[in-house]
Amino acid sequence: MLQRDLDNMGILRLTLDDVARRNALSEAMLTELGAAFDEAASNPAVRVVVLAANGPAFCAGHDLKEMTAGRSAPDGGQSYFTKVMAMCSGVMQRIVNCPKPVIAEVTGIATAAGCQLVASCDLAVADETARFSTPGVHIGLFCSTPMVALSRNVGKKHAMEMLLTGDMIPAARAAEFGLVNQVVASEALRDATMELARKIASKSSMTLATGKRAYHAQVEMGLADAYEHASQVMVENMLARDAEEGIGAFIEKRAPVWQDI
Amino acid sequence: MLQRDLDNMGILRLTLDDVARRNALSEAMLTELGAAFDEAASNPAVRVVVLAANGPAFCAGHDLKEMTAGRSAPDGGQSYFTKVMAMCSGVMQRIVNCPKPVIAEVTGIATAAGCQLVASCDLAVADETARFSTPGVHIGLFCSTPMVALSRNVGKKHAMEMLLTGDMIPAARAAEFGLVNQVVASEALRDATMELARKIASKSSMTLATGKRAYHAQVEMGLADAYEHASQVMVENMLARDAEEGIGAFIEKRAPVWQDI
Amino acid sequence: MLQRDLDNMGILRLTLDDVARRNALSEAMLTELGAAFDEAASNPAVRVVVLAANGPAFCAGHDLKEMTAGRSAPDGGQSYFTKVMAMCSGVMQRIVNCPKPVIAEVTGIATAAGCQLVASCDLAVADETARFSTPGVHIGLFCSTPMVALSRNVGKKHAMEMLLTGDMIPAARAAEFGLVNQVVASEALRDATMELARKIASKSSMTLATGKRAYHAQVEMGLADAYEHASQVMVENMLARDAEEGIGAFIEKRAPVWQDI
Repeated sequence: MLQRDLDNMGILRLTLDDVARRNALSEAMLTELGAAFDEAASNPAVRVVVLAANGPAFCAGHDLKEMTAGRSAPDGGQSYFTKVMAMCSGVMQRIVNCPKPVIAEVTGIATAAGCQLVASCDLAVADETARFSTPGVHIGLFCSTPMVALSRNVGKKHAMEMLLTGDMIPAARAAEFGLVNQVVASEALRDATMELARKIASKSSMTLATGKRAYHAQVEMGLADAYEHASQVMVENMLARDAEEGIGAFIEKRAPVWQDI
Repeated sequence: MLQRDLDNMGILRLTLDDVARRNALSEAMLTELGAAFDEAASNPAVRVVVLAANGPAFCAGHDLKEMTAGRSAPDGGQSYFTKVMAMCSGVMQRIVNCPKPVIAEVTGIATAAGCQLVASCDLAVADETARFSTPGVHIGLFCSTPMVALSRNVGKKHAMEMLLTGDMIPAARAAEFGLVNQVVASEALRDATMELARKIASKSSMTLATGKRAYHAQVEMGLADAYEHASQVMVENMLARDAEEGIGAFIEKRAPVWQDI
Repeated sequence: MLQRDLDNMGILRLTLDDVARRNALSEAMLTELGAAFDEAASNPAVRVVVLAANGPAFCAGHDLKEMTAGRSAPDGGQSYFTKVMAMCSGVMQRIVNCPKPVIAEVTGIATAAGCQLVASCDLAVADETARFSTPGVHIGLFCSTPMVALSRNVGKKHAMEMLLTGDMIPAARAAEFGLVNQVVASEALRDATMELARKIASKSSMTLATGKRAYHAQVEMGLADAYEHASQVMVENMLARDAEEGIGAFIEKRAPVWQDI
């Protein structure tokens, strides 16, 4: 259901592989994703994660049949829905909190929690067939949790356009919104994503982890607090072995050798 | 001064109609707008609000003659200005807090508090003649309250450009900034806006209200709190009758029938 | 090392002039910049600040040789790095807190803390040769403090792209990101910047200072608090002499005469 392939450059490809259900975030898929990101976070051999998908759809969001089946419980589904929402929000926050950069590689539709996956990643590469939507309004269920990730990627008017209409947004417009970084031809998608992943994988994992964590910490602070926090992070980063090596290598015009973690 | 037209699809068109004063936000206009949004919020027959204007100007902001007259009071206008600012900020926040989506339909100039109106709406459609500015700097009065709405729509450099120069921004550039969603030919403006309004009016009002409220709540929170809040909202939304109907209709491939509120 | 030129319109040009070191933010440069912004803040003759640079590079960030030399201290550089980070963050916040608008005029590379300088300014004009990056990842030292300014200018995906890859971003793409306001031909750069500066210098300094301070205050608040704060600012601004003059001049169709501060 979720393929894991780690290459010798430290790039872990996680590939959603439940094509028949358009890679829906079923309980089983969420469990596998959560475990994979936990493992990626703690495995020093993993330097960058690429989140890709098999089949014509990247991810169609929650599994509506599972959700509907959950209603048959005596409480009308309340405890089941609560559990699934916690699982899903947990996976999304694992991506944000993962010390390794995460890149979405998107082909076909990324809808509802599938769109949220893309928004939760640090970077996203899409092909020309990629389309994005938060279509919950069509079925009476507003995409409130996808909105959390979406509204931290795109401006208010663009987020509201997606959320209130449920319309499909083509890849080029998603790039204008700032939801994806680049749009390439379908045959170039994997190469473009892997080139980006390899570029990032060549950096110090300690440095990437330090910076990604600091990004999310400082962005929630006021300016003065953000500077105080980031300044402390910079000092600690300067004192770390990889910065000494990196700066030394730069001055000596040689390639750095990261110690990593 | 403010026309109200509610059609049988639940689309309430509020049309600023004080053409001689370029639809300035006089005390009278603010009073009518506030009352109209209060009514729209509580009237279940209203599903979507369109905010439009008659004449060549959408809205030229505050009524400077009224403001100047206010100076003649013994306190130099302090209590009058305080009252008008509270009225104006109250109207803007009524738009944000209105449970029904609000779409601005903009032709001609939208300046100062008129630009703030557009920024306060959930969505905005402009024609090619539309122009936007926060021109208070020209007259020694910085557009500080319009800035609150503007800076929640567009990035820092773009907001500062508008605020520090007071320059008119053409519709196409306002779209690049993220202040408006789309720009159409003048003869297509009303149709484009109404098509968007009808699309949204076909959704469940309960769902739209739930999502709009949650948008504004979560956007002010840190990520973890935002997810906790939005997850609760999703669970409650799942348990609501319109979500059960919407999901059922989707699975059964039929049109949903919203109960609404 | 830092040229200061104040013209008779109140435009202070600060020109980084350490071409051999690509205008690096050495201790000496930071000290001069801090002093210049302190002086600009308190000198009523200064109405607008332009931050420009001599040579092919706008600013290459910190002085890595100074930083490396700092490591030789008994504490491995900890107290030195802490001092330099505080100096640098202090300069950046002086730009933000300067009551006079600050415009960056960028040619060539603006990297690391040099990119942060541009992001910290209110406005930025770039020429076609301008390129921006946060390249710390190349040397094991994440651009965590530049990130504070960058992430308050551009969206998450764009900030992460710059921070995780360290890639150079051409001027046109920086404009799309919202990091710069306009891109012009190299031969037009100075004229374009000075035209923008003169436009802003013609406004009331009191008004500009009021608005710039309010921008940064309200942007960190929730919506209701932001409106309460901005409304108070508007009332005080209305009661100030320059607003009375500006509004009177507008109604009487004559040029205003600012009293200023």
